[in-house]
Amino acid sequence: MCGIVGIYNHPEASRLAYLGLYALQHRGQEAAGITSSDGGKLYSHRQMGLVADIFSEENLNRLIGSSAIGHVRYSTTGASNIKNIQPLKFTYAHGGIAVSHNGNLTNAQFLRKKFEQEGSIFQSTTDTEVIIHLMAKNFDKDLHTRIVYALGQVEGAYSLVFLTETKMIAARDPYGWRPLVLGDLNGSPVVASETCALDLIEAKFVREVEPGEVLIFSEKGTESFKPFDKPKKKAYCIFEHVYFSRPDSEVFGRNVYETRKGFGQALAKENPIEADMVVAVPDSGVPAALGYSEESGIPFQMGLIRNHYIGRTFIEPTDNIRHFGVKIKLNAVKGLVEGKRIILVDDSVVRGTTCRKIVSMLKDAGVKEVHFRVSSPPTSWPCFFGIDTPERKQLIAAQKSLEEIRQFIGCDTLAYLSEENLFYFQKNYDEWFCDACFSGKFPISLKDHPDISNSKSFKIK
Amino acid sequence: MCGIVGIYNHPEASRLAYLGLYALQHRGQEAAGITSSDGGKLYSHRQMGLVADIFSEENLNRLIGSSAIGHVRYSTTGASNIKNIQPLKFTYAHGGIAVSHNGNLTNAQFLRKKFEQEGSIFQSTTDTEVIIHLMAKNFDKDLHTRIVYALGQVEGAYSLVFLTETKMIAARDPYGWRPLVLGDLNGSPVVASETCALDLIEAKFVREVEPGEVLIFSEKGTESFKPFDKPKKKAYCIFEHVYFSRPDSEVFGRNVYETRKGFGQALAKENPIEADMVVAVPDSGVPAALGYSEESGIPFQMGLIRNHYIGRTFIEPTDNIRHFGVKIKLNAVKGLVEGKRIILVDDSVVRGTTCRKIVSMLKDAGVKEVHFRVSSPPTSWPCFFGIDTPERKQLIAAQKSLEEIRQFIGCDTLAYLSEENLFYFQKNYDEWFCDACFSGKFPISLKDHPDISNSKSFKIK
Amino acid sequence: MCGIVGIYNHPEASRLAYLGLYALQHRGQEAAGITSSDGGKLYSHRQMGLVADIFSEENLNRLIGSSAIGHVRYSTTGASNIKNIQPLKFTYAHGGIAVSHNGNLTNAQFLRKKFEQEGSIFQSTTDTEVIIHLMAKNFDKDLHTRIVYALGQVEGAYSLVFLTETKMIAARDPYGWRPLVLGDLNGSPVVASETCALDLIEAKFVREVEPGEVLIFSEKGTESFKPFDKPKKKAYCIFEHVYFSRPDSEVFGRNVYETRKGFGQALAKENPIEADMVVAVPDSGVPAALGYSEESGIPFQMGLIRNHYIGRTFIEPTDNIRHFGVKIKLNAVKGLVEGKRIILVDDSVVRGTTCRKIVSMLKDAGVKEVHFRVSSPPTSWPCFFGIDTPERKQLIAAQKSLEEIRQFIGCDTLAYLSEENLFYFQKNYDEWFCDACFSGKFPISLKDHPDISNSKSFKIK
Amino acid sequence: MCGIVGIYNHPEASRLAYLGLYALQHRGQEAAGITSSDGGKLYSHRQMGLVADIFSEENLNRLIGSSAIGHVRYSTTGASNIKNIQPLKFTYAHGGIAVSHNGNLTNAQFLRKKFEQEGSIFQSTTDTEVIIHLMAKNFDKDLHTRIVYALGQVEGAYSLVFLTETKMIAARDPYGWRPLVLGDLNGSPVVASETCALDLIEAKFVREVEPGEVLIFSEKGTESFKPFDKPKKKAYCIFEHVYFSRPDSEVFGRNVYETRKGFGQALAKENPIEADMVVAVPDSGVPAALGYSEESGIPFQMGLIRNHYIGRTFIEPTDNIRHFGVKIKLNAVKGLVEGKRIILVDDSVVRGTTCRKIVSMLKDAGVKEVHFRVSSPPTSWPCFFGIDTPERKQLIAAQKSLEEIRQFIGCDTLAYLSEENLFYFQKNYDEWFCDACFSGKFPISLKDHPDISNSKSFKIK
Repeated sequence: MCGIVGIYNHPEASRLAYLGLYALQHRGQEAAGITSSDGGKLYSHRQMGLVADIFSEENLNRLIGSSAIGHVRYSTTGASNIKNIQPLKFTYAHGGIAVSHNGNLTNAQFLRKKFEQEGSIFQSTTDTEVIIHLMAKNFDKDLHTRIVYALGQVEGAYSLVFLTETKMIAARDPYGWRPLVLGDLNGSPVVASETCALDLIEAKFVREVEPGEVLIFSEKGTESFKPFDKPKKKAYCIFEHVYFSRPDSEVFGRNVYETRKGFGQALAKENPIEADMVVAVPDSGVPAALGYSEESGIPFQMGLIRNHYIGRTFIEPTDNIRHFGVKIKLNAVKGLVEGKRIILVDDSVVRGTTCRKIVSMLKDAGVKEVHFRVSSPPTSWPCFFGIDTPERKQLIAAQKSLEEIRQFIGCDTLAYLSEENLFYFQKNYDEWFCDACFSGKFPISLKDHPDISNSKSFKIK
Repeated sequence: MCGIVGIYNHPEASRLAYLGLYALQHRGQEAAGITSSDGGKLYSHRQMGLVADIFSEENLNRLIGSSAIGHVRYSTTGASNIKNIQPLKFTYAHGGIAVSHNGNLTNAQFLRKKFEQEGSIFQSTTDTEVIIHLMAKNFDKDLHTRIVYALGQVEGAYSLVFLTETKMIAARDPYGWRPLVLGDLNGSPVVASETCALDLIEAKFVREVEPGEVLIFSEKGTESFKPFDKPKKKAYCIFEHVYFSRPDSEVFGRNVYETRKGFGQALAKENPIEADMVVAVPDSGVPAALGYSEESGIPFQMGLIRNHYIGRTFIEPTDNIRHFGVKIKLNAVKGLVEGKRIILVDDSVVRGTTCRKIVSMLKDAGVKEVHFRVSSPPTSWPCFFGIDTPERKQLIAAQKSLEEIRQFIGCDTLAYLSEENLFYFQKNYDEWFCDACFSGKFPISLKDHPDISNSKSFKIK
Repeated sequence: MCGIVGIYNHPEASRLAYLGLYALQHRGQEAAGITSSDGGKLYSHRQMGLVADIFSEENLNRLIGSSAIGHVRYSTTGASNIKNIQPLKFTYAHGGIAVSHNGNLTNAQFLRKKFEQEGSIFQSTTDTEVIIHLMAKNFDKDLHTRIVYALGQVEGAYSLVFLTETKMIAARDPYGWRPLVLGDLNGSPVVASETCALDLIEAKFVREVEPGEVLIFSEKGTESFKPFDKPKKKAYCIFEHVYFSRPDSEVFGRNVYETRKGFGQALAKENPIEADMVVAVPDSGVPAALGYSEESGIPFQMGLIRNHYIGRTFIEPTDNIRHFGVKIKLNAVKGLVEGKRIILVDDSVVRGTTCRKIVSMLKDAGVKEVHFRVSSPPTSWPCFFGIDTPERKQLIAAQKSLEEIRQFIGCDTLAYLSEENLFYFQKNYDEWFCDACFSGKFPISLKDHPDISNSKSFKIK
Repeated sequence: MCGIVGIYNHPEASRLAYLGLYALQHRGQEAAGITSSDGGKLYSHRQMGLVADIFSEENLNRLIGSSAIGHVRYSTTGASNIKNIQPLKFTYAHGGIAVSHNGNLTNAQFLRKKFEQEGSIFQSTTDTEVIIHLMAKNFDKDLHTRIVYALGQVEGAYSLVFLTETKMIAARDPYGWRPLVLGDLNGSPVVASETCALDLIEAKFVREVEPGEVLIFSEKGTESFKPFDKPKKKAYCIFEHVYFSRPDSEVFGRNVYETRKGFGQALAKENPIEADMVVAVPDSGVPAALGYSEESGIPFQMGLIRNHYIGRTFIEPTDNIRHFGVKIKLNAVKGLVEGKRIILVDDSVVRGTTCRKIVSMLKDAGVKEVHFRVSSPPTSWPCFFGIDTPERKQLIAAQKSLEEIRQFIGCDTLAYLSEENLFYFQKNYDEWFCDACFSGKFPISLKDHPDISNSKSFKIK
């Protein structure tokens, strides 16, 4: 998964991009980068690691100029390699161009092979690079034409921000899988994956960049284009609300914290059970747990404490002592939970191995009963639009029955939120949200994944 | 403040010490170190920074041997200097000795001056070093005698763990200011500042090291000594329960989470107010806020979201944009709090500057009323026993009236927990706890601080 | 300037490449890199700095496989940028390919512009990259055809070594500007810029790679091709013998030490003078100084001592003390030179600033007379074939008369080696060597430098 | 071995100390440090590594103040440990004091044991620290008295420079083993191990600090004291002239280059042989080789080329290829030496392993005869005064006969300079120089080495 940010025409552009990335760090902890422009040249700094470790006073000072774009990433396509860290920067006939991409193209491999056979050379293994090659093909056209041509060829999910020597361009695919918002900082336009980035730099939220919209920021001001055919329905990613976005962000027009709390309330209605307390898997499970508590009247307690000092290179003990797994991150408040019946709430279950360890830790701390409640439906399909879910055979819900999962996890009872209640907040859900990871209903055909496209769960757009 | 750990006679001693320090990281984020012994020689690694950044596979492999002690520190005495990072290691006539210290001696300056006039040379500026000099004075005596002699001369707070080539020694001052617990890992004794360190390495909690107790771990087993006169009363630090210890630890025989929740309940009884929600300053304010919510019936909400990716060298924007302060760490969930009346709960107020920024951020997010509730009494005195409270003139409660503080913070109403309710959990509080930071009643005279000792708020032991 | 190395089919390929680069360090101290292949994949490590600082046990262990190529560079074209460090590695339709280049192409800008207009994207600013783009154009042809096509399009100087997953290719331009030798290490072929690299890894010198030759190393063995038209004459770089190559190398069939000594002897014959001793500017001036001493009978002395501990970041004193310049590197042996008449010998004079400081330092040390002798003719033209001479206006010999230069340098007498005696060792010199830096007679037209090509000193091939 | 420097009352003190250390780098490449004083406080930076790598603009800027002392070290006593890097800095009753020491005390262990039994704690394992402990003993006396008392107790070799907040003190032991010179930089006094340090910072050489002299630099000016009894004779270290000092320095009143050339001339007289050329082991063997050449009339040639890019972490090839040893540093100029008879000159032979490899390399390059000449007598005894010669059993001359050594080295003939000619430059040598490493005649008894003191070769002073 990734987060992107861009700021145009502000004297502190690269520092604001840095702050924006910092607020978006939850969207990608593997690597980060910023490219700035001073009107004549592009400057770049990209590195593996966390935003706060990568950027120093010194290297921010070198990112001069009044425009900057940034990127945080957790690799979705492309190996963990310095060459793949974004913003990708290219030199072509028109000068320099840099790009930050959140999402995943579904025909990138197909296009890349075609290009390579025509003599093109790729510098990264990311899907993003084909967009630049497509842009390079229309030597004699203007930037707008080249971008529209390139985006017209690619399929899949993209929220993008480009930077040239003199312009910034933001674009979002017609289905709108990934969020992208437009803000304003005293007249300087800002784009970012989530509103929490606007909050930190104290920019005003203006509106979402619309699905299918291309925004060009230049000295002429901001121009909006909608050059693509509208699909019959949108495909906003429901997983952004379930897990990915920060609870203090407004995503797809809804407050994430409130949506999650609603998931918890719906879950309590669907799956009531008697217990002494509701405990969240922190931090992402907290809002749903509070919703569950509110609906059920069973008190919410911080029965699991999270250690916030986890480093990049945690060293496990060797042969003579047990491995620690989840205990490095979480510890049970023994004095609180001992002898109690608890409802444990988490946002989703992928492989099932982490919640298994948490349940085991709670039982070791003397918990009498663990009733595990998941505030989303069973995750049964991989995502091809930007979320890093593993392949199907590693998804526990694609491999086991509910009872088998319960046994694997070791809890006393287990319940997921139903697909219906996942969309408790709207009537006509299949028109607006992509829930393929739960339902297997992929809104578009997947050119680079013919095996999935041919499965019967695929749903024609 | 500091955290200490020691493990004796275990093949993975230094790795367990590392894990122990990791669990105690909240007690000191400035520097850390481990010293191990292989029975013949001491090995050390000490560095500025976080535990997870300091220790690597490589340097842990060099800390060989079956005993190890560790230390995390936030400087209380002694400048931030590599020489002052603990465990301090010394060579003297009896071989090597290393020491980790939590607490603060109140006659260290006095003793140091005496030593220097007799020709001694100090290698650090910490108070801890005088203990080693005192031990070096009895060349011909055994280790036990030398330690008892040394500890008999020092005054103030100490939880200590020493390591020699063949022995480990734990000691706690007769007043018991700082916690120290004894655990057992499959027969290997472990000592640590808090039980959360035992939890992580899966050691069994045995008991507290008692105030005034000296424990010697050697090949003969564990020997306990109580060589010092018992003071009339103990002086357990109440601030460990208010703020310092981790909520999942048992400290001075009580669960910290439960105590804090009780503070919140008492606070709600003393200072009720009508509002739409209770919001905590995360993470330390959460248990008290939950207590307040439970007692008052006003729902608890995570209205402030904490960013957990804060790096060591955060770079502020320069001239052209506002400085960010608390926004780097916290953001309000605007969609939740806008237009609402909230009760904001925090554990303590020191300078008042942070809560002022939080209140301002909430108001900017559209909060209608902020009722600020503090789950401890006004912090009015510095601590000389190991907590890093600043000098009196920086303590807002020592300088301003309640109404002046409210105006400075900018909240609509303000209330602290009363001193009486701070000890809601016991009858005979003045016998057992040190609350000098709130009351100014220091349990002992302060030889290195005659100005405080002579103040009329001082209370003879 | 640059140095290159390649080894094919040896279990220690990357370590041998490392050693080879180490021996070639004098050819480029700015950056270095190695790419290896294990038959299926290419592995790379490239960095700014010295070979011995860049490579560690750890990163060499990651350069697995039985073939490896390497490169040391001092930037001739392309800014100092991580992207430009060689070996450049590319992915194209045929898999991966890496390349190390010594020399400089004279029509790279011209070709690059053409490519960019056709939609190609460049990843570096080096001249070398056009070769790969030319290779990528013939998607359906075999490696040999693609290389011959590509090299047929470029003009200028190149000694090249390519590495693909399964093959290594060495090539040298038809004029033979830069050296390239073929060696044999127990059956494994080795190529390197100079024989000193073969000496270090104890490989046997086989022969020079011939001008215009392409060698393909594969599992079929070594194949040699000479696909290009032979030019009327060769253009071996005389500056390799004057200054650039190591004295223990055999270059263009001649021992460098002996050639340099011969320059010194010829210089002594041409420009005799009475003096007390001959002193070299160490280390490069030593062989010529010994030749001068031998011919003249005036004793050679190490009157200047070189400091070998020069670091990468030498810190100059600030305002209050004089800047040090050449004293950091050299010091006069005062006790030896005081009151003496010395003949100072250096290999060449470029800007004249360094020798001016040396003469000044000798005078400060009490030297009575400094007779400066240069063992090559006046450097009057820039090089477009790989040597980093600055542009003409910075070359003192292009701007001043002999007497003006003597005054600028501050020596008592000054003499250069004549162009005739530069080729003392052969009869028909203009057939075999490029001495354009001295004569301005460029052997080919310079497409990227029309201003020079049109100057009347240009000599048609 | 070590090098020391000090500068008093100069606005650029720490930068000048840095330059001085840089010029003295040959005296110790393991670690370096500088301590400065701004009149009120001492500032220090010490690290393993080379001077040019250790110091940066940033850390030099932190070494504020107008006085500074520095040290480069190759460990003679005390393990390679950050604690042992000098200047050692101490805090005692009189404030701070730092010290740089060149030489080696011969009763340090004896004194240290005594101190430890009285309760003192040592912070390093260096011999130097006892001096500070001795100084700390006279609490109530002035600095001068404390230094004289301390130096009166220690035995052995010391050239010292101390720094306090307001004063600098230089001292040299009564025998004068190690050099120490006094310079003047526009009125600011400078002390340094060798004159080459004065040359670099352009300070004027004033005179040697005399054996037994204590110089105190303060705001009162420079005071000289000679508080110690004069020994019957001096013990200047002859090895400084043979190998250790830089050839451009004046040491003990003689130019090192000229002395070494004289060794070579004497060697040629004593041990003539017919050959084609004289070749030096660079760089230290060059002056003696030039002397040999001058005396014998056989031409000097640079037949061995030294690689100057040796890094700190040279990586040897692994199993499949031969180890490289000396080839990393030196290469033979094959084209020059092939088929020739050469006289190979080096300054000294310690273990014999390096010269054995050089002879083998020359033979591999086709040299017909190698006549090895050593410009000093056989090194047969360890040094206890500061030179890092290994223990006796590792000294080839202490273990083998001349013919056995010749066979081990593999040369055709072998000859050493005689002890008589070692002192060719003076009449009454046994009065003035320590040649114990050659003769076994130690000028003083060695309290810490009773085994050596009792050997019959020991010579009472």
